[in-house]
Amino acid sequence: MNHFFNVKTLDQVFTLMAQFPVLGTETIDVGSAYSRILATDLIARRDMPGFRRATMDGYAVHAASTYGASEASPAWLEIAGTIGMGLVPDFTLESGHAAHISTGGMLPPGANAVVMVEHTEAVDQGSVEIYKSVAPLQNVIDAAEDFAKDQIVLGAGTFIRPQEAGLAAGLGFSELEVYQVPKVGIISTGDEIIPITQEPRIGKIRDINSYTLAGFVAQAHAIPVRYGIIKDDPRALKTACERALAECDMVLISGGSSVGTRDYTVDVLSSLADTQILVHGMSVSPGKPTILANSANKPIWGLPGQVVSAMVVMKIIVTPFLNRIQGYKKAVNKVRIPAKLTRNVASAPGRRDFIRVILENEQGRMLARPVLGKSGLIRTMIHADGLLEIGEHVEGLEKDALVDIILLS
Amino acid sequence: MNHFFNVKTLDQVFTLMAQFPVLGTETIDVGSAYSRILATDLIARRDMPGFRRATMDGYAVHAASTYGASEASPAWLEIAGTIGMGLVPDFTLESGHAAHISTGGMLPPGANAVVMVEHTEAVDQGSVEIYKSVAPLQNVIDAAEDFAKDQIVLGAGTFIRPQEAGLAAGLGFSELEVYQVPKVGIISTGDEIIPITQEPRIGKIRDINSYTLAGFVAQAHAIPVRYGIIKDDPRALKTACERALAECDMVLISGGSSVGTRDYTVDVLSSLADTQILVHGMSVSPGKPTILANSANKPIWGLPGQVVSAMVVMKIIVTPFLNRIQGYKKAVNKVRIPAKLTRNVASAPGRRDFIRVILENEQGRMLARPVLGKSGLIRTMIHADGLLEIGEHVEGLEKDALVDIILLS
Repeated sequence: MNHFFNVKTLDQVFTLMAQFPVLGTETIDVGSAYSRILATDLIARRDMPGFRRATMDGYAVHAASTYGASEASPAWLEIAGTIGMGLVPDFTLESGHAAHISTGGMLPPGANAVVMVEHTEAVDQGSVEIYKSVAPLQNVIDAAEDFAKDQIVLGAGTFIRPQEAGLAAGLGFSELEVYQVPKVGIISTGDEIIPITQEPRIGKIRDINSYTLAGFVAQAHAIPVRYGIIKDDPRALKTACERALAECDMVLISGGSSVGTRDYTVDVLSSLADTQILVHGMSVSPGKPTILANSANKPIWGLPGQVVSAMVVMKIIVTPFLNRIQGYKKAVNKVRIPAKLTRNVASAPGRRDFIRVILENEQGRMLARPVLGKSGLIRTMIHADGLLEIGEHVEGLEKDALVDIILLS
Repeated sequence: MNHFFNVKTLDQVFTLMAQFPVLGTETIDVGSAYSRILATDLIARRDMPGFRRATMDGYAVHAASTYGASEASPAWLEIAGTIGMGLVPDFTLESGHAAHISTGGMLPPGANAVVMVEHTEAVDQGSVEIYKSVAPLQNVIDAAEDFAKDQIVLGAGTFIRPQEAGLAAGLGFSELEVYQVPKVGIISTGDEIIPITQEPRIGKIRDINSYTLAGFVAQAHAIPVRYGIIKDDPRALKTACERALAECDMVLISGGSSVGTRDYTVDVLSSLADTQILVHGMSVSPGKPTILANSANKPIWGLPGQVVSAMVVMKIIVTPFLNRIQGYKKAVNKVRIPAKLTRNVASAPGRRDFIRVILENEQGRMLARPVLGKSGLIRTMIHADGLLEIGEHVEGLEKDALVDIILLS
């Protein structure tokens, strides 16, 4: 009964990622660049900020003019003028002089520091007392201190967060070349699966996977395309796969959960033009009955029909593939949540286990509480905040063990 | 010079959230519900899965028929039939009998467990040997085991992750009532600020905040609406505020960074119809010059012009307000990353400090490495993975301290 001829470890499946090419690129407005992946290096075309700039409200000075200044023995400086915002000062600041300046203002030539207004007191229109000395470049950003001209400021493959969008805008890149957003086709299979708008007769189950998988695709900043439910019929599945492959960059087939369906899913995939089966079974729990094929350089997945298994596989391995074809270069799941396990957890050696956990913040310490309930219950995923990964060579983990959690959010 | 008459702690600002009402609701397709907030409780209209269902391929049995079975002494059962996927078995299983079943199949009346196929061997067409006993309900999900009829399965205020979308679909909710997506108006001010498409003359700086703030709004699943750059002119600012308030659910004014601008921002806000200033300064660093007003029940923020300060305030306090008006009920920043600090960090008592940190995974232990560089440099936010929060009553943290990091992703 065992048709898992090509069972791979999770690490082996990860290495297959390299054979799928990154999508093409497109040019978009920087104002809508959030969550996209940069396709080219961004190189600073000028220094940033480009001039010596105050970071505090106060007085631009020669730092040396303030040395030794204190409450008891203030420095006395002559006021040389006021610097208007966005204007170029029309005077050079001499030693022993100070100029009013606001945060963001440009220092006059000669000035190399700013004294905060809180550490000064105007004596009269023409002079000010300084109660605290400043060091050169204190309360100042120098002309090339954020970025210097010709420096690579963001590399190709960078995920654009708010700060990356702002930096690109600040450097004058009003358009950015980014990777295309992948379309992901989703096919649900199984004679027991009915559309969600139908009232299930006994023995039938509504189509859950089309909706959970679409959610994970959206979470990975890609576009889900649902192809509905295909009955257990190889010809119908083949037609649906061909259509989805023609229209999408990746295809997910969920189910069928029956042994027969799993068998013919592989047969159908094998019968597609220019398609090789790469994985037929993963030593992962839940998620063993996972199939991966390469169809003309597009990944096509056969995911378990069981709803929880499908979600775990989607999170731990399909999402990284989706990131890969979008050109994302950052390490997969780099940030995990360290937490303390609240009870013993058993695990079978020889497979990678993923345990659903609830995260609880106990006085600044994160606790990982394994979710109770059979693994097939969708409510275990509703209650879970994250997944605990247990390696192939570990037989189980003890209460109070320090573990790393993959966030499910 | 100090106009901060209404300086609030961060905790005080959080309590003001309650005075802003949650947005209205709308009905959407469950297929596009990812990242929305549920506006009503979802109540199960039937048991889920609704029938006793196999979670493994194998044989449906009376558990008692397998008691004592082992490799050395298998139980011998008569095969009563095969259960087709999605079909209702047309026979009752008797003691001493077994029925072929696939994952997801419906158990026949009488059967209360499934023996995995790996623990069986067919003797002939009519009988099978069982090598391992099963307990009642083993490898089975009972009719109401996931959710029982009339149970609240998801509460109003729940953020819809992939699993919540799937559960709602599985319960037959093809449409969901969710809170509207807020529109957030973004106004940049300052005479030194120029559009990003212009080449800055010395002393000028391109508009960064419109783009970073739009990114944070998108990250919070809301819709940014940019109103461009307003010069330092109270009448122009008032007009822009009125327009943004009419069209949006929240308004952000970034800058002006000069003392004069900060003063008149408060004056402009005070002059708007039905508007009260709630906050004029927060004891937070960076982010002190933050203003919050309530304008006819809509929040309107004056954010620092300094780019890093604006981002920190956006992340730590504006985003929670944005979640609030979207009806999100989960605790703010519930999940943080525990990490070990790599060096001493100073902090002034009396204010809440937010330090940018890089997270490094060192053999399963997360390290928080404070980002070097002046706080006004945007590159400190580019390098940062998260923010370290230091409380008002803490003078600093020592190397190796265990800290919690707010993720910047």
